[in-house]
Amino acid sequence: MGNTNDIKEILSVKSISNSTAPVGVFDSGVGGLTVAREIMRQLPCENIVYFGDTARVPYGSKSKNNIIRFSEQIIRFLKTKGVKAIVIACNTASALALEAVQEETDIPILGVIAPGARAAVQATENGIIGVAGTEATIQSEMYTRVIRKMDPGAVVIGKPCPLFVPLVEEGFAKHRITEEVIDIYLADMKKTDIDTMILGCTHYPLLRSRIKAYFGEKVHIVNPAYETAMDLKKVLAERGIENLSGKAASYEFYVSDAAEKFTRFANGILSYDVAATRLVNIEEY
Amino acid sequence: MGNTNDIKEILSVKSISNSTAPVGVFDSGVGGLTVAREIMRQLPCENIVYFGDTARVPYGSKSKNNIIRFSEQIIRFLKTKGVKAIVIACNTASALALEAVQEETDIPILGVIAPGARAAVQATENGIIGVAGTEATIQSEMYTRVIRKMDPGAVVIGKPCPLFVPLVEEGFAKHRITEEVIDIYLADMKKTDIDTMILGCTHYPLLRSRIKAYFGEKVHIVNPAYETAMDLKKVLAERGIENLSGKAASYEFYVSDAAEKFTRFANGILSYDVAATRLVNIEEY
Repeated sequence: MGNTNDIKEILSVKSISNSTAPVGVFDSGVGGLTVAREIMRQLPCENIVYFGDTARVPYGSKSKNNIIRFSEQIIRFLKTKGVKAIVIACNTASALALEAVQEETDIPILGVIAPGARAAVQATENGIIGVAGTEATIQSEMYTRVIRKMDPGAVVIGKPCPLFVPLVEEGFAKHRITEEVIDIYLADMKKTDIDTMILGCTHYPLLRSRIKAYFGEKVHIVNPAYETAMDLKKVLAERGIENLSGKAASYEFYVSDAAEKFTRFANGILSYDVAATRLVNIEEY
Repeated sequence: MGNTNDIKEILSVKSISNSTAPVGVFDSGVGGLTVAREIMRQLPCENIVYFGDTARVPYGSKSKNNIIRFSEQIIRFLKTKGVKAIVIACNTASALALEAVQEETDIPILGVIAPGARAAVQATENGIIGVAGTEATIQSEMYTRVIRKMDPGAVVIGKPCPLFVPLVEEGFAKHRITEEVIDIYLADMKKTDIDTMILGCTHYPLLRSRIKAYFGEKVHIVNPAYETAMDLKKVLAERGIENLSGKAASYEFYVSDAAEKFTRFANGILSYDVAATRLVNIEEY
């Protein structure tokens, strides 16, 4: 009995110390900031350690083996920061690596695919759902599989849009050329009966108004970031590790390359003012 | 005296064994194949080991420190293949890493910047030269420095064109949208008096006809690949390590990711038929 009580006490102490620990959020680059932004909004007390793999961005055209290896290195890095949970704020890594890394890790790891799929299944009326994403995400058919588990009758139409990421990264989000690229990639999908469209890459919410205007009012646009933050809130509550300290949250940003460029970009996306981004040699993890 | 003769003999033996050794050629991805193609054409007896860093492509938006580290890893890998010389078939790595790696290496290492600069200085009549390249290449001002050493009065107008690489990589080289992107990036340069334009990124020769049509007959387009192959020929001859075996050359291709995609792309660029591309975990070097 004494033993059991000791263990309970240790668990309870661990839980208290865990609750103020940060949440790790990672992405191939800046795109995951759209997810971090949503976590900051919905979970304003949670500390965040963000990692952007800017030395190896983009992930969307790379192979499953490498995406798993990159994700494992980043998770090892985030663990050195004592994170209590990890959000893979990258659709490609969520689609290709989440299952593999979940098996190896003792803290909760959430991806963005399941939350996005659920939001789409809830939003659709006719069960015909479009997904725009990277080459790797669409080829994995992960959205289709997860949506069909929730609604076996759903029809999922996926389309890789590989130029969207460089367009956003190079500051063309509001340029006329982006309208044309949207038309090149999505004209066929527009002709279908989809009534719901998932922005299946964390960069794409930065093109949201353009894509929304392109499809018009009849199509509901889903940004998985919103549901991902809600899921995180639920997981932290279930495990009793929400941060209830009442202190203002602190945010740390790390990248594998070009820290200043990242800081500028982050300050354009977040309402939080990013003072500095630190550089990490992620290959050493 | 005996000693000197011994050394001479050793050098001579080394030189014979070196002469059939392959030339290492590397790039961030597929772009360097435009240089490899030119080496195959001009030096048909030279064996080639090609490495494309497809796990970390593109280099053009990344920092000097990382580009040097990536280049050092690749050179260590190529040395395990017994290469007798290395061609950095990537403008970004040539601009940012060539000087650093030349200091550390005992075999000849050539970049593409000096050959491209020399070709432009020879071609220009009015001394006003344009350079299109990646963000990193243009910011380094390496072309400007090298051209000014050859012709102190030359005027060099650089322009970063970051979308050109993803447009080529995603198969849009012949698409109408590429014409528009060329106009967005190069309209200001077209208004200047340049009579010579350097394609300062190994992907850009794949847009050559479009860029040539955009500038018209008055502008001479320089592809540094041609002069780079000529330089390689000269260096091998000077050191007495040309391959004079008379055997048909053999070519090996290695990448850090997505070998099959690379093979397909390579077969679209090279007249040589690439049977297989092998995968290397370059971070281990």
